[in-house]
Amino acid sequence: MKYTVIGTGAIGGYYGGKLARAGLEVNFLARSDYEHIKQKGLQIDSVYGDFHLNNVNVFSSAGEMPETDAVIISLKTTSNRELKNIISPLVKAGTAILVLQNGLGMEEEIQKDFPDAAVIGGMCFICSQKRGHGHIVHMDEGSVNFSPLNEKHSVLMKNIIDDFEKAEIKASYTENLKSARWGKLLWNIPFNGLSVVLNANTSEIMNSEYATSIARMILEEVMEGAEACGCTLHPDSPERILKFTRKMVPYDPSMKLDFDSRRELEIEYIYRNPIKEAEKHGVKLPLIKMLADQLSFINSRF
Amino acid sequence: MKYTVIGTGAIGGYYGGKLARAGLEVNFLARSDYEHIKQKGLQIDSVYGDFHLNNVNVFSSAGEMPETDAVIISLKTTSNRELKNIISPLVKAGTAILVLQNGLGMEEEIQKDFPDAAVIGGMCFICSQKRGHGHIVHMDEGSVNFSPLNEKHSVLMKNIIDDFEKAEIKASYTENLKSARWGKLLWNIPFNGLSVVLNANTSEIMNSEYATSIARMILEEVMEGAEACGCTLHPDSPERILKFTRKMVPYDPSMKLDFDSRRELEIEYIYRNPIKEAEKHGVKLPLIKMLADQLSFINSRF
Repeated sequence: MKYTVIGTGAIGGYYGGKLARAGLEVNFLARSDYEHIKQKGLQIDSVYGDFHLNNVNVFSSAGEMPETDAVIISLKTTSNRELKNIISPLVKAGTAILVLQNGLGMEEEIQKDFPDAAVIGGMCFICSQKRGHGHIVHMDEGSVNFSPLNEKHSVLMKNIIDDFEKAEIKASYTENLKSARWGKLLWNIPFNGLSVVLNANTSEIMNSEYATSIARMILEEVMEGAEACGCTLHPDSPERILKFTRKMVPYDPSMKLDFDSRRELEIEYIYRNPIKEAEKHGVKLPLIKMLADQLSFINSRF
Repeated sequence: MKYTVIGTGAIGGYYGGKLARAGLEVNFLARSDYEHIKQKGLQIDSVYGDFHLNNVNVFSSAGEMPETDAVIISLKTTSNRELKNIISPLVKAGTAILVLQNGLGMEEEIQKDFPDAAVIGGMCFICSQKRGHGHIVHMDEGSVNFSPLNEKHSVLMKNIIDDFEKAEIKASYTENLKSARWGKLLWNIPFNGLSVVLNANTSEIMNSEYATSIARMILEEVMEGAEACGCTLHPDSPERILKFTRKMVPYDPSMKLDFDSRRELEIEYIYRNPIKEAEKHGVKLPLIKMLADQLSFINSRF
């Protein structure tokens, strides 16, 4: 299968880079990094071993890119309003669209824009960041959990999982996309937001009884939201997440990096959509709403 | 009556200064400002007219101060753990203790330490701050609403109100101290905390739909807390408070000034005590708890 990476940053640079290194055909779309990657390639510093790719197939416009079997969406969700225009030259009937983003509701929106595409969610459990032009630093973990929006695309998805595993990416598969999205939000909702509002990394949060107490309260509210939407998460999940985050390398969540660089925060998909979904099912999430409003206030001052 | 001001800052400097200007005997306790006030007096820049007091009766230790009829507590509540030691040389049976502080539970604690004193709460509706040594700036309002912890001290309190009015301070009286304290918290809980967490003054909060939305949610929760404690506030209070705050001069709440100067924040009396009181009556205040924990986290980093 041929892959096209839309957004060559912390996520797309890492996973696309590994697929390319494994010999798969990968074409990359880049914006600010286009010239650099064209000339100097892609550098991935990874806890699993550093590597460099020369002669990267990089493009500055999707219209110029070759045909593809799978489009990897690794832009931030703050670009999703432009997504339809960006990828429409690449998407045919049956094209896989792998949504490697955080939040809720991306897959449903993309499916509406491309009714004949195979939209597949990808929950990435990874600590990575773009350190400079064409330079990705991968600090921890790296597995992807795939889940198709429509079950009929399970076979296609399994082929993709095979490719990812060939590229030495731990890839798994789950049936219920919505539950998987809520499961991922369990980490993103408390830790992305608190890292910005408290201006703290994960270990500063976990080393404070106060910040941990907030994280725990918010985790419980995410559980309620998931439950309301028919996604029952394991009752131990909040404590597992706290334990896991306590053990993580000190980490600036992506939203903290966005905040530090005064880039638009991913509030709509990570916060507003889950709040709306729970509300549709009659459940309010006031703590998450307060955190979202704090983030919106902070974002409005950039 | 003779007055003793404990803490010659934004509150004690202003009210004590006005009482002294009106010819009443007022003795001031000062710490860092003692030398300055001793030599250069007290300067009050007020929207109602500036004035200067020379030959201020200022002391650096309560043990050296003359006898008094009324002790005005105008320290921050963060000093309340030292309060018993500070004022015990001044308090006799029947001495009035006027508690011009924000929060909940101060009067009950002071009464325990001084069972024969006449403990009276004073809710100050004022925008003022200490700008420098012996220099108070008064920007808006200035009324005090008094309420005795024990009704038998109503007569004494009315004499005090007369003195305050002689000094051109609008003073009123209310029977139910607990309700009055919760009524005051209705402003303090949202606006003190949000000004710190969002690093914003009152008009920046009120000009943001997001920050206003948080303030409204918290106001509703303060209403629930008050209700749980048997203090029914007027149902229109939240909207009145928002309207009033929208019209206020842009103002840094006292907690914002404390934050800017990295002084300990008044979290215990303004946040933790109301949370505890409501919880005693079976009602949780999760948004206020989250705000308090955010403040405690921020405070722990000073």
